[in-house]
Amino acid sequence: MPILDSVRARDIGLGCGHLPPGPRNSIADVADVRVGHCTLDDGALRTGVTAVLPHAGDPFRDRPVAASAVINGFGASVGLSFLDELGVLETPILLTNTLSVPACAEALIRRAVRANPAIGRNLPTVHPVVCECNDGGISDIQALGVTPAHAEAALDAAAATFATGSVGAGTGMTCFGFKGGVGTASRRVGVDGAEHQLGVLVLANFGRAGDLRLPDGRMLAPPAEARAERGSCIVVIATDLPLEHRQLARVAKRAGVGLAWCGAFWGNGSGDLAIAFTTANRVPFEGGTVRTQLVLAENRIDSVFRACAEATQEAVYDALAGSPPVLGRDGRRRPALRDCLSLTTPAA
Amino acid sequence: MPILDSVRARDIGLGCGHLPPGPRNSIADVADVRVGHCTLDDGALRTGVTAVLPHAGDPFRDRPVAASAVINGFGASVGLSFLDELGVLETPILLTNTLSVPACAEALIRRAVRANPAIGRNLPTVHPVVCECNDGGISDIQALGVTPAHAEAALDAAAATFATGSVGAGTGMTCFGFKGGVGTASRRVGVDGAEHQLGVLVLANFGRAGDLRLPDGRMLAPPAEARAERGSCIVVIATDLPLEHRQLARVAKRAGVGLAWCGAFWGNGSGDLAIAFTTANRVPFEGGTVRTQLVLAENRIDSVFRACAEATQEAVYDALAGSPPVLGRDGRRRPALRDCLSLTTPAA
Amino acid sequence: MPILDSVRARDIGLGCGHLPPGPRNSIADVADVRVGHCTLDDGALRTGVTAVLPHAGDPFRDRPVAASAVINGFGASVGLSFLDELGVLETPILLTNTLSVPACAEALIRRAVRANPAIGRNLPTVHPVVCECNDGGISDIQALGVTPAHAEAALDAAAATFATGSVGAGTGMTCFGFKGGVGTASRRVGVDGAEHQLGVLVLANFGRAGDLRLPDGRMLAPPAEARAERGSCIVVIATDLPLEHRQLARVAKRAGVGLAWCGAFWGNGSGDLAIAFTTANRVPFEGGTVRTQLVLAENRIDSVFRACAEATQEAVYDALAGSPPVLGRDGRRRPALRDCLSLTTPAA
Amino acid sequence: MPILDSVRARDIGLGCGHLPPGPRNSIADVADVRVGHCTLDDGALRTGVTAVLPHAGDPFRDRPVAASAVINGFGASVGLSFLDELGVLETPILLTNTLSVPACAEALIRRAVRANPAIGRNLPTVHPVVCECNDGGISDIQALGVTPAHAEAALDAAAATFATGSVGAGTGMTCFGFKGGVGTASRRVGVDGAEHQLGVLVLANFGRAGDLRLPDGRMLAPPAEARAERGSCIVVIATDLPLEHRQLARVAKRAGVGLAWCGAFWGNGSGDLAIAFTTANRVPFEGGTVRTQLVLAENRIDSVFRACAEATQEAVYDALAGSPPVLGRDGRRRPALRDCLSLTTPAA
Repeated sequence: MPILDSVRARDIGLGCGHLPPGPRNSIADVADVRVGHCTLDDGALRTGVTAVLPHAGDPFRDRPVAASAVINGFGASVGLSFLDELGVLETPILLTNTLSVPACAEALIRRAVRANPAIGRNLPTVHPVVCECNDGGISDIQALGVTPAHAEAALDAAAATFATGSVGAGTGMTCFGFKGGVGTASRRVGVDGAEHQLGVLVLANFGRAGDLRLPDGRMLAPPAEARAERGSCIVVIATDLPLEHRQLARVAKRAGVGLAWCGAFWGNGSGDLAIAFTTANRVPFEGGTVRTQLVLAENRIDSVFRACAEATQEAVYDALAGSPPVLGRDGRRRPALRDCLSLTTPAA
Repeated sequence: MPILDSVRARDIGLGCGHLPPGPRNSIADVADVRVGHCTLDDGALRTGVTAVLPHAGDPFRDRPVAASAVINGFGASVGLSFLDELGVLETPILLTNTLSVPACAEALIRRAVRANPAIGRNLPTVHPVVCECNDGGISDIQALGVTPAHAEAALDAAAATFATGSVGAGTGMTCFGFKGGVGTASRRVGVDGAEHQLGVLVLANFGRAGDLRLPDGRMLAPPAEARAERGSCIVVIATDLPLEHRQLARVAKRAGVGLAWCGAFWGNGSGDLAIAFTTANRVPFEGGTVRTQLVLAENRIDSVFRACAEATQEAVYDALAGSPPVLGRDGRRRPALRDCLSLTTPAA
Repeated sequence: MPILDSVRARDIGLGCGHLPPGPRNSIADVADVRVGHCTLDDGALRTGVTAVLPHAGDPFRDRPVAASAVINGFGASVGLSFLDELGVLETPILLTNTLSVPACAEALIRRAVRANPAIGRNLPTVHPVVCECNDGGISDIQALGVTPAHAEAALDAAAATFATGSVGAGTGMTCFGFKGGVGTASRRVGVDGAEHQLGVLVLANFGRAGDLRLPDGRMLAPPAEARAERGSCIVVIATDLPLEHRQLARVAKRAGVGLAWCGAFWGNGSGDLAIAFTTANRVPFEGGTVRTQLVLAENRIDSVFRACAEATQEAVYDALAGSPPVLGRDGRRRPALRDCLSLTTPAA
Repeated sequence: MPILDSVRARDIGLGCGHLPPGPRNSIADVADVRVGHCTLDDGALRTGVTAVLPHAGDPFRDRPVAASAVINGFGASVGLSFLDELGVLETPILLTNTLSVPACAEALIRRAVRANPAIGRNLPTVHPVVCECNDGGISDIQALGVTPAHAEAALDAAAATFATGSVGAGTGMTCFGFKGGVGTASRRVGVDGAEHQLGVLVLANFGRAGDLRLPDGRMLAPPAEARAERGSCIVVIATDLPLEHRQLARVAKRAGVGLAWCGAFWGNGSGDLAIAFTTANRVPFEGGTVRTQLVLAENRIDSVFRACAEATQEAVYDALAGSPPVLGRDGRRRPALRDCLSLTTPAA
């Protein structure tokens, strides 16, 4: 399911921002970052798993420098405490529904142990990172339908081209009353003549119906089916810029700007969080005593902040653009944004 | 200088949001909250002090529950550590330029000691709260022109009606390339049939020229004089809603949404921070062993979040609306937004 | 397995501190708090689950006010983000080994759904709280031997009397080179003539061999078998004192004092964290719009801080006191502290 | 007033810990770190200023990487927000009494402007760092006796040898009921065969009378004059180890361990905070776009944590050791620890 098959934000006029997108306008514009999905879509169950692999190797052995930002902590994600204390990511990042976090965490543990049989014996344990949104609005979340095998399938499917919209963890998501899902976008950031990439992938399940703001400021009158339900948004940010942990935390925080630019105010029940990692600084598991780290001058970081905010905003539109209308459990419908773009109203 | 003399955001069509404003559309819609200015505006010096008094009594004796949110910590404000550890405000809040924080802090200390001669003797010390923005763009900030007497004058001038725009601490501010300053707005929030107020006052000195977004989504082409300089934004939030410290911290964080809705991405050099306090829960200095606190149910807090975001956004427009064009040090000009509203461009 | 069968800290002269303990010197001195264990101890597998139930009802329906403190974030615990954003606990707290967190989280989800069939349908999802230490030193942690059924068994076994030492989650723990485990202690805190209780339960798996400091300051020469391995310490603090979330966060932080008093310096690999809850302030799931909360005056909180530090310190000694020597996987031995008390050396 | 004239902790048998001290057992064992005092000691006024200079140059131009840890936020220090957002220190650190923070901040601003006349004009503003303890117990703190000139004098007096005890900011301090003050200590930390230094300077004004614990675990019966007053402790940590901001924050946190090892539980009114900086990583004001930073492997950081905890503990004893008995305002007496060492009681 290559990304070219998905309707993208720019296909329906929803590109945004000042900075140029990367070649794929995708998180995979950062070299070696890959994304895989496993989709469960049969009747009452509309859910899945999406995996983000930070590079081609084993992250337990070659750990990207990383940081998180909790925009609103109403959530059940795992692994952020270790990530922020040590400043590194040591597994791929899995996205899924709220109640399937344990199944995905178990899969990451088993996979890390398979690759590193000394984990928990002569090596420390491993700290899986799994983030979630609540897709109970249209999927039978109580069924705990996702198994570790589904998580493994998402990891195995990872590639530089991937589908967006109602796929993987995005299968059951709702965003501003429309069908939500997985979206992506990227921005090019030049530093000293070299071009770097900052890419974002969102699991978009947030926003009150009626609050969506389009790039040109228009508001969308939600169709009759749209309900006031709210959810969360997970934002994964990858870059090849030379940033340290403190700077990645600052960048991750700007994901909140992108969500606000879409019209959100980070509602009480919305577990909005962002994780940012860089492939440019890595901490080898068996390295020397002192490593060298490249750090961007802080007076150049504004373009990185802007890139994160813009790519987050566009990735949300991309999740909406990629999603067809869906009929979920108990006859609940979610219209597609792309079918409703003529319904915009004068901005307020 | 009653507030009616200032051009307000709604006078030039820049009202925004869904919730209704309070009677004055001002932070002073929260009963007993007062604001005073002292303005220094002679040649090279264009600066001043703005005071926010949380209620009619002595806050050292009757401390409003309070919390802060650091949106971007590039700043020199004082008093936030105590405020967040103890969860109360014990002085008025003063706003001024970056290098005049010490003079204002000294004034708050002297004033508290005058009112409570046992401070530092048989009573604990006092923890002043002073926030700042850098007005060095058009004022001679090096002159350290603000004295404790100016701070006292602002405190003494506090009233429920007050001017907005280029006044007090707002005298030398710049916002999205236009003349910035002090702005205010409020929103009504109903709880169980009773009407509550949430009011915001901003010291608006932030935003890159060209990034300003109007309520209807239009972007403003900055006039030729506009420069890329950046500053900060201080957001003071008052309410009479029954909130505890943890909730006020959540509310304060949503000031960042309001700034983003204006077009900001919380730039590196922008010391954006918010302080929220409630007059509904107070901690008496000499109280009993256990006090009773009213706490809003969390599933009602979304309207408070929205009120904070909307009022912050509108208070920024209000600061811009109230400010005439200014000629500052070294011939630096700051155009008035209200002179440039015809220059809007299609939103991007 | 009543608590009276365990050797307690005071049985071997390791009581400490100034404040008097409660009647059981146990976390269960806080009314309605109960603890249950499920122990796995067969050959290579020496692990288990310990459950702390905050009160007699369903915490999803009647949520105790709670807060956490991350002393050192090298860990894989789940549920803290929600706990600190909302300020409540909505499930029992489970303790287990690092790689069994997913199994325990799944058990808490399933149990909450059984009791509240609308979870994830017409109600929000549930946020389980599971904390962990690494018992891989003497147990085959890779086996992922703990299942959701074991977690259910620990929950079902909860009672006001419970065993300490090498039991439940404590079965495979190591502490300062000795056999560690589960320990408990409590302190009485008087407020206005009324007696309150603060109780602590620790899962003690931390401390370098040779660093243990006894209450009288003596250091313990570690026996030859003691290795330099390190782990973590989880501290659960229960009280019936009238505290708000902010204050519980302050109290939880003082668990770090208790660990330091035992000789620890919160090592890099030690995932030390504390969770504090009060039964005196609860948030009903279906409550009114505004609730009333009792808040202790801050100038009375020092005795609560001291109670937490002292009870944490003694609970660690209690975990050590209760544990017999153990022979673990690959012939690894852990001596019992109670067999080594004559080996103390002059304090340094 | 060379350091040799002061009674040091080891002179009276109060050395502690496992790691070896540096050549001076002083923060100045870190190359180019200097300390200066200005003491006000005439009748009712017993106060002053202590300056810590991080290196021989101008920190505004050559900024040491730095971080802070707020152990208990009951305080009025300034500059930490910038320090933690940007990860650097850009002025010397001044220590003084609580109400003299503004005077010291003004001095740092004026000094930075003198050295860099473009500050606030063509350069950004400067963010002074001033920390404080309340010496109102024996000094007339209301008099605001410290002026910017005193702060300048302390800065001008900075040298690698300096007095300890009742001097500079330490003149009016009280610690565990005894006369407190300024103390220092250091530890050597070997990395790959090279020897590094970690030095600590404390302003010790904390601890309840009766809670002091000596290195060997003995408790000190407080003399009759000792009162229950409490204050704060400021801990400044300097090192030449290759650490990044995140790691310095972790190291600074371990200052809390050192205070606990002295017997403290971080009381409600004790504004305990720590600032750590490294001279090994600096951020030049006018540097290139990307700088190289050396980062110690995390699995080597335990010895740095231990060094910080041990040096903090010993620096507190050092402050006590260096202080003679003092008669303060209103006849209040503070005995000297060194006169009371025979009064120890069996540890409890």
